[in-house]
Amino acid sequence: MSKPYKGFEPKWIKTAAPKDSYRSIFRWGDPDFVKYPKEGLYKMMKEIFKMTDDDFKQYANDVGLDSVSLDIPSNISEEHLTALRKIVGDAYVSTGDYDRLSVAYGKTAYDLLRMRENRYENLPDAVVYPDTAEQVEQIVKYCTDNNIPLYVYGGGSSVTRGVEPVKGGISLDMRLRFNKVISFNETDQTITVQAGMSGPKLEETLQNAETLFGAKRAYTCGHFPQSFEYSSVGGWVVTRGAGQNSTYYGTIADIVLQQKYATPIGKIVTSHYPREATGPDLNQIMMGSEGTFGVLTEVTLKVRRRMPENRKRFSYIFKDWETAMEAGREMMQCECGFASVFRLSDPEETNLMLRLYNVDETPLWQLLDVTGYKDMERCLFLGFTDGEKGFSANVAKNIKRIAKRYGGMSLTSFVCKSWEKGRFNDPYLRDTLMDFGVTTDTLECTVNWSNMAQVHRDVRKVCHALPNTIVTTHMSHCYPQGANLYFIFITKMNSADEFKAYHTSILDAIQKSGAAISHHHGIGKMFAPWLEGYIGQREYEVFRVLKNYFDPKYNMNPGGTIGLDLPEEEKRFLIPKEKE
Amino acid sequence: MSKPYKGFEPKWIKTAAPKDSYRSIFRWGDPDFVKYPKEGLYKMMKEIFKMTDDDFKQYANDVGLDSVSLDIPSNISEEHLTALRKIVGDAYVSTGDYDRLSVAYGKTAYDLLRMRENRYENLPDAVVYPDTAEQVEQIVKYCTDNNIPLYVYGGGSSVTRGVEPVKGGISLDMRLRFNKVISFNETDQTITVQAGMSGPKLEETLQNAETLFGAKRAYTCGHFPQSFEYSSVGGWVVTRGAGQNSTYYGTIADIVLQQKYATPIGKIVTSHYPREATGPDLNQIMMGSEGTFGVLTEVTLKVRRRMPENRKRFSYIFKDWETAMEAGREMMQCECGFASVFRLSDPEETNLMLRLYNVDETPLWQLLDVTGYKDMERCLFLGFTDGEKGFSANVAKNIKRIAKRYGGMSLTSFVCKSWEKGRFNDPYLRDTLMDFGVTTDTLECTVNWSNMAQVHRDVRKVCHALPNTIVTTHMSHCYPQGANLYFIFITKMNSADEFKAYHTSILDAIQKSGAAISHHHGIGKMFAPWLEGYIGQREYEVFRVLKNYFDPKYNMNPGGTIGLDLPEEEKRFLIPKEKE
Repeated sequence: MSKPYKGFEPKWIKTAAPKDSYRSIFRWGDPDFVKYPKEGLYKMMKEIFKMTDDDFKQYANDVGLDSVSLDIPSNISEEHLTALRKIVGDAYVSTGDYDRLSVAYGKTAYDLLRMRENRYENLPDAVVYPDTAEQVEQIVKYCTDNNIPLYVYGGGSSVTRGVEPVKGGISLDMRLRFNKVISFNETDQTITVQAGMSGPKLEETLQNAETLFGAKRAYTCGHFPQSFEYSSVGGWVVTRGAGQNSTYYGTIADIVLQQKYATPIGKIVTSHYPREATGPDLNQIMMGSEGTFGVLTEVTLKVRRRMPENRKRFSYIFKDWETAMEAGREMMQCECGFASVFRLSDPEETNLMLRLYNVDETPLWQLLDVTGYKDMERCLFLGFTDGEKGFSANVAKNIKRIAKRYGGMSLTSFVCKSWEKGRFNDPYLRDTLMDFGVTTDTLECTVNWSNMAQVHRDVRKVCHALPNTIVTTHMSHCYPQGANLYFIFITKMNSADEFKAYHTSILDAIQKSGAAISHHHGIGKMFAPWLEGYIGQREYEVFRVLKNYFDPKYNMNPGGTIGLDLPEEEKRFLIPKEKE
Repeated sequence: MSKPYKGFEPKWIKTAAPKDSYRSIFRWGDPDFVKYPKEGLYKMMKEIFKMTDDDFKQYANDVGLDSVSLDIPSNISEEHLTALRKIVGDAYVSTGDYDRLSVAYGKTAYDLLRMRENRYENLPDAVVYPDTAEQVEQIVKYCTDNNIPLYVYGGGSSVTRGVEPVKGGISLDMRLRFNKVISFNETDQTITVQAGMSGPKLEETLQNAETLFGAKRAYTCGHFPQSFEYSSVGGWVVTRGAGQNSTYYGTIADIVLQQKYATPIGKIVTSHYPREATGPDLNQIMMGSEGTFGVLTEVTLKVRRRMPENRKRFSYIFKDWETAMEAGREMMQCECGFASVFRLSDPEETNLMLRLYNVDETPLWQLLDVTGYKDMERCLFLGFTDGEKGFSANVAKNIKRIAKRYGGMSLTSFVCKSWEKGRFNDPYLRDTLMDFGVTTDTLECTVNWSNMAQVHRDVRKVCHALPNTIVTTHMSHCYPQGANLYFIFITKMNSADEFKAYHTSILDAIQKSGAAISHHHGIGKMFAPWLEGYIGQREYEVFRVLKNYFDPKYNMNPGGTIGLDLPEEEKRFLIPKEKE
């Protein structure tokens, strides 16, 4: 990916993870793709993390090259296995070590570090590969009747321990067969898919709608989370995910038209109308349930016309964070329409990004300093517009006008293109660094414009309480009333427990700051302790009455998911109940 | 409003309704405003309704000029009254006939006809005028502790019997005092108001934000239902209302940021962030509860910059309904941004509207016929754009381009301006006609583009099963996936029971057609029998478990509202349970 090192180069693992290896499970995505830091970044990291070349001469943990072989028995009876085989077919029930491990963890650093520590804590007893919604309905019924915990693995990119089968039982691996198109409706601009449909397969389908469905044109869903390549439609929906283009396309909560669930009390089908005045909104009740009310089987998504030829890329540099936030707010409130990607980096992230894009090796770096856009004060703002030609051009024109008014200097579309090149593959770099005990992870929250500066300050302060740490922040997923703040930290850290303690300190800070504890990552089991404290006790109880209705025996994604069966003592209430 | 009649003119009641009269209660809004048909329309109606001048020589029912004096005792104990007076102040609890009657009915023809028949069926025992959210919380607690039914009257424009106190008890009249601004936040572009805030007062406040709050500019909420002048923010929210400009501004479900409720189990406060991934969406659970979970006390609304100078008005005439729907769909799906008002009339409505706007008295009427836009085939499409200048212009430009492609002929902005002039005062005309036994009412539903033609045909067929009836339909409140279909009928009808039977036959047709039984009128008590059949039984039960949580004693808006305490035998299930 970059020029050869002049000095010492660590033995970055550049080969594909061996098939059937642990590494093939915990490593991100495409086994043949590798990303490692260029020399300048490597030097910078050593400096910040107080590490030396010696730290990069041996791997810091088990990099997982062995074949998976576990000594963890499957505790499911032959009778149950026979029943499950009868539902899905003999070939589609597995108790093999590799299959079980491959659906046990998500992608938070806590998961990856545990695997590198050989801590294989929670495995399903069996993995089932359903083919149809009817099969899932039968499985849910069987598990309910027989009190078997049921988990779902969609794409596996959860960073909240959302998929982890902490009570054992069965995990449905949706990747193999539950990934089909059910129907495409060009008149209504919708597509109905099975919940295991992957992001890339969905986009490929929509972009080839002319060939596949005889459609008049190509479409897009507009949902591109960073995890896009290894995420599933079902995962997007049940966690209320958002893609990087959500400022224009909306979060998945805006994109979903209809959902179908297999729940312990039977099938639940929501409305397929864009708006209605028929009581509480069932679509918005089911989204966010994260598998605790039942298994999402089919989803109807709104699709949009794909017109990449109209895209206008932009990037600007602002003198400081406060001014840049003001400019962003003005762009979101001026009624000109919204950009698609709309992302503002704070000074520390700007420093890192400009290095990643090799701007530090160009005269621009100095030029910026000299013209008053000083390193560690300046803020990078980038993105692009989508939509019909005139719409897209008008949004870009207004962004340009406002950026200029707030002292922004255009960096042309180069920086945005650099960002686009790397937008889905940062997780690969993370794996490479982790081999040497350098851990990267992220946390994010929603803020209003009026508390954005305060939350940014408060949360970063806690992140930086860990010395020798890079903490970068950006604002993205914007609204006229606020935005998402996204925190990324990179630090020398090689222990799952150490990570968990750090993660906890940051979530504590987010809850104390008053921000919403997740804008789009969801809650899972890892964020659950903070949920009731954020939502409010009386308000949170609503989730529990819904759970009691759909899954009274608590077999659906049990073990603390969205806090429903979380022990009282694990809950964290850190904000004064001012809401009361 | 129009030229003097040349022939016989009925004795339209043009004077203000006497203060304290029945008429002042059942008549729409401003007592000094009157609207009556021009001579051409009067003639047309006589023809269609098979009526003669003789039918217009005497009033057909009790036009309500007497002072209110009822013989219906208030069944509330002095002890309760004392307790309530202690909460709100002595002057703010009333058991007077006028006060009780004035909050007992909404504005469906069923309400108006019952009043004209002197059928005063359901009155509250007392009316309470709260001042603060804390008072409402105390009242809810008191009513819960003492098993007193509690109703809320916001603006009174309900057409679903939503406000009717069918179990007696207490009605909160929000108009007098519960209409204050709590706070205005220009940074986040939000305003927080008490739920009794009226539409006009809200807009006046926002449009004068510079003076009132020292804001930088004027704002608007963008929510203008036809009932605007006599509707309340609380009513909009709990029923999931939509304004005529919702294609751009969204329905109230999109405009609300945060809600505060006083429920029997205590105060419920929802999130104030635009999006989050923290479980089911509590804002969308509370909206649509129509007072059955508790009383909405405060609402935070998103506000928008008011820039009427950028508005572009348009109107086009299309040759037929099918082509016009296609054009509308293309406009909504082309990704150019949305118009604010976006309204397409079917042939029968087009005929009536062109008459209302006096086009039948101009050469245009003939010209249209001659050029292939034939009466009773042609469809009128009108609206205007809002937003930033370039955005607004781009939307209008695309609408023009698409209209042209589908054979639309521009009628300039004149027709749209005529529509705007009458947009809020059609209800006055309704009252005037009702004095002579001519009844007007509306029903509406949500459709997708793919079933729009079928629903339009099926529902109109049932509407027209009543002979001598004008039935007009328009598509409005549009989305890329569908729209609202709005049916208006005008007929010779002078009996509440006859109206109810007709209304039932239309709702049956809507449910059978598969459309959503309400896009923005809500459910109330009148539409409740159809709700479970539409939502699905297992899905509907979710509403009941929420009710059981918030109001286990069923004292909040009891008597069938959104079907929660509706007797099984009153429910209507008319569609095959294909969802199952």
